[in-house]
Amino acid sequence: MAGSTFGTIFRISTWGESHGKGVGVVVDGCPAGLPLCEEDIQKYLNRRKPGQSKFTTPRSEDDAVEILSGIFEGKTTGTPISMVIFNKTQRSKDYSEIASYYRPGHADYTFDEKYGFRDYRGGGRSSGRETIGRVAAGAIAAKLLEVFGIKVTAYSKAIGDVEIDIKNFDIQERDNNPVAMPDKEAALKAQELLEEKMEQKDSVGGIVECVVTGMPTGVGEPVFDKLDARLSQAIMSIGAVKGFEIGAGFGVAKMCGSENNDNFAVDHMGNVYKKTNNAGGILGGISDGSDIILRAAFSRHHQFSHHRRQSIRIRKTLR
Amino acid sequence: MAGSTFGTIFRISTWGESHGKGVGVVVDGCPAGLPLCEEDIQKYLNRRKPGQSKFTTPRSEDDAVEILSGIFEGKTTGTPISMVIFNKTQRSKDYSEIASYYRPGHADYTFDEKYGFRDYRGGGRSSGRETIGRVAAGAIAAKLLEVFGIKVTAYSKAIGDVEIDIKNFDIQERDNNPVAMPDKEAALKAQELLEEKMEQKDSVGGIVECVVTGMPTGVGEPVFDKLDARLSQAIMSIGAVKGFEIGAGFGVAKMCGSENNDNFAVDHMGNVYKKTNNAGGILGGISDGSDIILRAAFSRHHQFSHHRRQSIRIRKTLR
Amino acid sequence: MAGSTFGTIFRISTWGESHGKGVGVVVDGCPAGLPLCEEDIQKYLNRRKPGQSKFTTPRSEDDAVEILSGIFEGKTTGTPISMVIFNKTQRSKDYSEIASYYRPGHADYTFDEKYGFRDYRGGGRSSGRETIGRVAAGAIAAKLLEVFGIKVTAYSKAIGDVEIDIKNFDIQERDNNPVAMPDKEAALKAQELLEEKMEQKDSVGGIVECVVTGMPTGVGEPVFDKLDARLSQAIMSIGAVKGFEIGAGFGVAKMCGSENNDNFAVDHMGNVYKKTNNAGGILGGISDGSDIILRAAFSRHHQFSHHRRQSIRIRKTLR
Amino acid sequence: MAGSTFGTIFRISTWGESHGKGVGVVVDGCPAGLPLCEEDIQKYLNRRKPGQSKFTTPRSEDDAVEILSGIFEGKTTGTPISMVIFNKTQRSKDYSEIASYYRPGHADYTFDEKYGFRDYRGGGRSSGRETIGRVAAGAIAAKLLEVFGIKVTAYSKAIGDVEIDIKNFDIQERDNNPVAMPDKEAALKAQELLEEKMEQKDSVGGIVECVVTGMPTGVGEPVFDKLDARLSQAIMSIGAVKGFEIGAGFGVAKMCGSENNDNFAVDHMGNVYKKTNNAGGILGGISDGSDIILRAAFSRHHQFSHHRRQSIRIRKTLR
Repeated sequence: MAGSTFGTIFRISTWGESHGKGVGVVVDGCPAGLPLCEEDIQKYLNRRKPGQSKFTTPRSEDDAVEILSGIFEGKTTGTPISMVIFNKTQRSKDYSEIASYYRPGHADYTFDEKYGFRDYRGGGRSSGRETIGRVAAGAIAAKLLEVFGIKVTAYSKAIGDVEIDIKNFDIQERDNNPVAMPDKEAALKAQELLEEKMEQKDSVGGIVECVVTGMPTGVGEPVFDKLDARLSQAIMSIGAVKGFEIGAGFGVAKMCGSENNDNFAVDHMGNVYKKTNNAGGILGGISDGSDIILRAAFSRHHQFSHHRRQSIRIRKTLR
Repeated sequence: MAGSTFGTIFRISTWGESHGKGVGVVVDGCPAGLPLCEEDIQKYLNRRKPGQSKFTTPRSEDDAVEILSGIFEGKTTGTPISMVIFNKTQRSKDYSEIASYYRPGHADYTFDEKYGFRDYRGGGRSSGRETIGRVAAGAIAAKLLEVFGIKVTAYSKAIGDVEIDIKNFDIQERDNNPVAMPDKEAALKAQELLEEKMEQKDSVGGIVECVVTGMPTGVGEPVFDKLDARLSQAIMSIGAVKGFEIGAGFGVAKMCGSENNDNFAVDHMGNVYKKTNNAGGILGGISDGSDIILRAAFSRHHQFSHHRRQSIRIRKTLR
Repeated sequence: MAGSTFGTIFRISTWGESHGKGVGVVVDGCPAGLPLCEEDIQKYLNRRKPGQSKFTTPRSEDDAVEILSGIFEGKTTGTPISMVIFNKTQRSKDYSEIASYYRPGHADYTFDEKYGFRDYRGGGRSSGRETIGRVAAGAIAAKLLEVFGIKVTAYSKAIGDVEIDIKNFDIQERDNNPVAMPDKEAALKAQELLEEKMEQKDSVGGIVECVVTGMPTGVGEPVFDKLDARLSQAIMSIGAVKGFEIGAGFGVAKMCGSENNDNFAVDHMGNVYKKTNNAGGILGGISDGSDIILRAAFSRHHQFSHHRRQSIRIRKTLR
Repeated sequence: MAGSTFGTIFRISTWGESHGKGVGVVVDGCPAGLPLCEEDIQKYLNRRKPGQSKFTTPRSEDDAVEILSGIFEGKTTGTPISMVIFNKTQRSKDYSEIASYYRPGHADYTFDEKYGFRDYRGGGRSSGRETIGRVAAGAIAAKLLEVFGIKVTAYSKAIGDVEIDIKNFDIQERDNNPVAMPDKEAALKAQELLEEKMEQKDSVGGIVECVVTGMPTGVGEPVFDKLDARLSQAIMSIGAVKGFEIGAGFGVAKMCGSENNDNFAVDHMGNVYKKTNNAGGILGGISDGSDIILRAAFSRHHQFSHHRRQSIRIRKTLR
């Protein structure tokens, strides 16, 4: 059954596997008149390129995006925008062994069970490259949100047991280190931790935090399309995400009502504001004007190359 | 914009506010031939009735469900099943004061901002009674899942800082105490904690855990309709939920890949199974045959009656 | 699979069968602040009551609507509006014979094939009473459209081979005769035709025409949600409709391009208008500001009572 | 708002304009394991190429399709299938004049009103080339339906006032003449009519008939997803279609119930069948096992080149 579409008014349909000809997305519902060109998309794609540091996957890829429709004289026409990123690097020999394995933590097994057979090369549709289409669509969404003064910022909040310190928070720092931490000291510690794990051919998980500023009030549709519910669906659908929280998140479980309340106040202009923001910017599923603060927990799995003897040669065994 | 519908093949549309004539749901897409009657629904509704313990809201309500369509000769016809629960208790005078308040942590403010005016009686559509429609629909879903051998069980995992102990786990115990904990000792401690908080006119949050057994493999649709993404949307849409996690959840952030791997093995019958279940039963968004284990964090807010002087009389101030 | 929902922003979910407890609809997405009460709905329901003339089904029904949610202090709250019409008349003995028949032209056979069994009383979900929910929802839509100056008017254009004459068109006349024709002479001829057919225990089909005035330009979404495509889906989903056309409709098949063109002109105020309206108010799936003119062809089937010997006693034969 | 997606389980998202870089479609939900390659698609695209006869648009285009994802080792993987057809012929100078025109019968005016500006080159998204994506998706659907023994056949039933004669019906003939008529004599008459009109720089409309054989019973979802309602939406969304009918279609308006009934009978094997098929294979919105017979009325518009003096130079006038 179809599951690669997200959104109602602004709708995206992603496609592509890691070792097919390319990956891409069709963005439908972007209003007409928004200035848009490949560069607006490319700058986001460049941030996700693996191989930029010794810590990320060593496959070198050129992810050059091409916009095939929906643009005229430099602006969106209001019709669907199709974007393609052709897969330049397709070294199948890298993956010749995994045809016979179900890698732990990967979807090899479940894809086989669901579809009957699978594209074993590098994870197919379940690979990280599937997110390229989302990033491209997100680039357009980001440009559109800017028009409304809304800005989305994300960074690594924690890697393993290394957490950023609010007191050292500097968003510029995020783009200066390979672990995307907006805290110079924590970034160094995290890199040390990762080097240690890499020597053990191991890896470690982490938490990404995302802040949305400039939100107007009133966005979100009770009941099932509450803003936090839809954000949650979107975030949980990213591979390796095992948890989503908003505001004080799982911390609210231990908080008393008195601690958790975000009390209202009125400023000298007559505007309503909240003194705290444990709710994370959303009340009853509708934005309340505060920043939206959300977090996602990413799991990591032991690298395949180390476990080939441990993985069960299931395909050879069963078939 | 419409937001009260959930599901594609099996679709539910809920309606109703706390102080309207009633609440209900239309369930569309339930296959024909399933035996169904009011009792199948009522037993679930009876579990959620407030006033059953001193710890829950003291409004006494009769939540008798009526099935208005979709049944013939005791079985579903395959056509939409409409269920209504009429609001028996409608004591508007209980709520006369809150017309002028925005209660912290409640959706009064955001509903006003979104809709321009709101039904101030008891929380309207954002109240807990909105979940009645979901419970009724869930009762039908539960009966349907039974046909496939799938069972859903939920319980309180933690209330405040009181957590259940796996060693004392006894699911029968859950229905014997007012805090729904499957651990007798923890239930007692939790009740003490709540009594303490109530004296301070305060409250405390908690975590609900849910286990789904008997899942076949292959359920879930990459990419956006991954099983965990959709479960997340559904759970986060429940009022007061601020976090959702699956399997090891936020714990994965600190785990190494080697710890987090659920290694595969093959039993003597040739069936694949996993030695651990950090993934929580879902890999790549598709069920893997293990139990699905998920958790939701519930926040609590300070009771209104104590804070009426603290709440800003915003309505009187601004309008 | 669910199929009783229509609409995205303004969404309706209908339910109910002819001999269940009632029929109804949930309208989700109606904006807040629209004045609304039972009378606004009842006046439309009263127009569709059978038994108002000797020509329509002789079952006398009280279709009193009740609004159960979504209204507060006489205005919509923006939350789902649930409406119920309880079935007062349930004389099962009228239908005792048809349990063993598949009536030609009715969905008895197909429902049995699809669902495995069916509610044989009076047509169940496939009966004309299913449209009550739509009329109720339509009443709300009509009130909403009025706010924008948009008006929807429908009437019988033809019954059998009796057609209305444009020269005698008088919309007031429509409500003065039982065949809803806005042409006094044609109405009389149609009634004579129907009396003739009734004596033969036969019936005849017809065409309903609908005009929408006050349309702004720009409504409709290429490609699949073109305005005419969606109108078509809505109309074709009404029981007994076998054809839908817009503007010159099937007449265009014989027209030359030169005849069919609706040439543009500019008036003294600088507004664009069309000299003709063969397009029926929609170009490329988007409204062009002219009136929308559409037609639906209704088929009729021979009354059951006359054919009970001819109908195959299939249920007894096959089961 | 997004409108270029169709389908729920098998979902297609089309994109592309006549003078953009290309057109295409993403097909999501095709089951895994279906053998598929470019040739399966190309054969359908080759049938729609303009320039194949003197009667169709003289632009010569190479419509070579490329499958970019969703296929592995010659079979579908169950993941989205992205197909692209690059626009080879882009002679903008052909269209330099129409920037200042609203062509009658085309969507130039309505697109401008809706979006504020438009891609004036050749009709943009509203052009005939938009259907290429649909044809490509349809090719996959056709292959899938074959697995179930379902076959879809379409042909020209009428062009202007020239209709095919059932007595001369020969489906092979359809592919032997440029007007796609399965009747040799009628095809000749139609070609003469078209030549006559072309000399007058005029054109004429027509009717396409489509027959679906091998349908099982039970397909279709009351109420709004009735099979005929959805087919109607799909067909009406094709440019230039102004009417849709099924079975006896608009003819039922004049038919008596007795004529219109498709009486049931039981054959010697105990299978139910209908003696006639005025319903066109669908009863109550659900397939009844008979062939589905539907028709679409296509309008034509006077060729632009002849009317440039008659068209209002609206863009120059108003802006």
